[in-house]
Amino acid sequence: MEDVAIVGVGQSSFSRKCEMTIKELVFEGFKEAMEGLDISHTDIDASIVCSSLYDNQRSAESPIAEYLGLNPQPTFLIENACAAGSTGLRTGWSFIKSGLYKIVAVIGVEKMSGQTSREAAEMMGRAYDVTWESSFGLTMPAGYAMHARAHMAQYGTTEEQLAKVRVKNSSYSVKNPKATFRKALSLEDIFESVVVVSPLKMLDCCANADGASCILLARGDVARTVAKTPVWIAGLGSASDTGVSRRKSFTSFICAQQAAKQAYAMAGVGPGDIDVAEVHDCFTIAEIIAYEDLGFAKPGEGPRLVEEEETYLEGRIPVNLDGGLLCKGHPIGATGGSQIRTVVKQLRGDAEEIQVKDAEIGLAHNIGGIGHYANVTILRR
Amino acid sequence: MEDVAIVGVGQSSFSRKCEMTIKELVFEGFKEAMEGLDISHTDIDASIVCSSLYDNQRSAESPIAEYLGLNPQPTFLIENACAAGSTGLRTGWSFIKSGLYKIVAVIGVEKMSGQTSREAAEMMGRAYDVTWESSFGLTMPAGYAMHARAHMAQYGTTEEQLAKVRVKNSSYSVKNPKATFRKALSLEDIFESVVVVSPLKMLDCCANADGASCILLARGDVARTVAKTPVWIAGLGSASDTGVSRRKSFTSFICAQQAAKQAYAMAGVGPGDIDVAEVHDCFTIAEIIAYEDLGFAKPGEGPRLVEEEETYLEGRIPVNLDGGLLCKGHPIGATGGSQIRTVVKQLRGDAEEIQVKDAEIGLAHNIGGIGHYANVTILRR
Repeated sequence: MEDVAIVGVGQSSFSRKCEMTIKELVFEGFKEAMEGLDISHTDIDASIVCSSLYDNQRSAESPIAEYLGLNPQPTFLIENACAAGSTGLRTGWSFIKSGLYKIVAVIGVEKMSGQTSREAAEMMGRAYDVTWESSFGLTMPAGYAMHARAHMAQYGTTEEQLAKVRVKNSSYSVKNPKATFRKALSLEDIFESVVVVSPLKMLDCCANADGASCILLARGDVARTVAKTPVWIAGLGSASDTGVSRRKSFTSFICAQQAAKQAYAMAGVGPGDIDVAEVHDCFTIAEIIAYEDLGFAKPGEGPRLVEEEETYLEGRIPVNLDGGLLCKGHPIGATGGSQIRTVVKQLRGDAEEIQVKDAEIGLAHNIGGIGHYANVTILRR
Repeated sequence: MEDVAIVGVGQSSFSRKCEMTIKELVFEGFKEAMEGLDISHTDIDASIVCSSLYDNQRSAESPIAEYLGLNPQPTFLIENACAAGSTGLRTGWSFIKSGLYKIVAVIGVEKMSGQTSREAAEMMGRAYDVTWESSFGLTMPAGYAMHARAHMAQYGTTEEQLAKVRVKNSSYSVKNPKATFRKALSLEDIFESVVVVSPLKMLDCCANADGASCILLARGDVARTVAKTPVWIAGLGSASDTGVSRRKSFTSFICAQQAAKQAYAMAGVGPGDIDVAEVHDCFTIAEIIAYEDLGFAKPGEGPRLVEEEETYLEGRIPVNLDGGLLCKGHPIGATGGSQIRTVVKQLRGDAEEIQVKDAEIGLAHNIGGIGHYANVTILRR
């Protein structure tokens, strides 16, 4: 069977509120993904839209496919909370690997600014079990705050260490023209921001946003023909977990560990082989836990990684050099694709100011809910 | 590459209003699908939930997977309007064919009774382009009524011919213990029902319902080991169309014709080889158009098929012997799986009172929206 490669990546600007429709947002990502490729929209055999549909439009795949000129090819929508984008990637990979299609567009989109923050928080809450979780007040910040408290209790992690994740990511977001927040933040900025759920302050949290992403996948032989630098999908891992109330651990996400193990095995590499990574930093604590779940640090030693600047551009394993969810903003369905885009640009050598020298193997780590779903994707130049 | 087979099928009872949660509904379908199989829930490598999420629960795949004991295996949700179930089947097929998984559960569910009919109609309307279609009042019955009028104008189709579809399907629904409506209807019953959008009367329309379905797919070698009578996926076709306002034809669904063509080619069969079929009769006119789009009748000759009883159990090509959407009810995400279940039971020889003698090749035709999406699946004993 031919391998599968990523031949195009794109995203819209992410922002807190844009005037564009979801169709127009998607077009921005699609246009960038098609740039320099020797194909037209009619060569795309199928499209997959990844979204949680916070917008007024239901069944968004039909108007989106029409707007991009992707009829009469099949199209459908994948929802998987914040992990939809990477689930779409895995699904597109399967369609090509199975022999059914040659080129697949994986489109991510969310427009959240039509909801007030309170409405969006309520909708997000209903993504957890409405019988046993959201009905007792489990919100995203509350769930991650529990993990932060557990990590602090078990390993002595400090609020300052958490804040340092945001400091790092904000120092890179100034170089990302498509990020929502492009200001380098100090520890003081973070400590002075309002407490959301202790110990998490406003600037420990990512923000809802509007945005779209697009990843174009192609069968190996086609990829070599149409793209200058195909980036190969080397490892795919995916797992789920029960609701939060039935978990044994609050210092890690078991499903992320399982997904990482699968992806490393499939790619035939280990954590030490990864040159650059994008991890799901919906909250500062989430990036710390990701370091540990992915094997970049031992359990409890995640905070040291950012403190010793090992996850900075010049460090051992640079992480979230595009600003991460914390600074880019987190338009749910578009986030997974945006992570993949950054890793692909690194492996192509197109990452400009944030380029990791000679990056050959990259990883994207995408979590859905409060560790309800996890996907780990390993890419290779 | 090994072929992919269906090793288990199940569904809950469909009804206008049930007291069960979506988790409990899904369990009913899952339980039936697992009956007689030599596997346990831990052998299932991944689950795909197909739904339009009319229920209060968002991201339903997590609570459903937990309830069925399917963690930590990956799970995600597919939305594709009324075609989600068969899109889930095609996706599950790809995951197995690609080599990633061996056994996949494709679960369909919808609980629509939490909404009033008016609310559900409004949500359904937003499945079409909110800028250009639903905002101008395009509802499901209105869209199909336009098709009925066009078919009447072009081919002289009569309201009586439309009503005969419901008469046929209701005559079989009395034999389906899981159908919502189990009363044999006369032409008079249909003509006496209230006009919804002329020429469609209430009994020309299917009804929103609560229900779930489950299809278990397995890689060929596994299927032969775990199931007594695997049913093989022989042909898969899928296509989409633009919004209704840009269509050239209102007497057919072009995307269904395209999906049928692909499925026939992949299976190496033609319309004359099909022994039994389930088609998407969300409205009586939809079954007539399906006959023509699938090649069971020439354009304009669909009405004759039901009039001459060729689509009855004893006829040339029996269609919707389980009562169809018209009588079973139409719990959106569960419908595609319910159709597959009926065809599989026919090919296994398990269809009891509605058994088509020596059925070897079956077809399921599943439409999303007003011909926005179409999937055709061909199964073989």
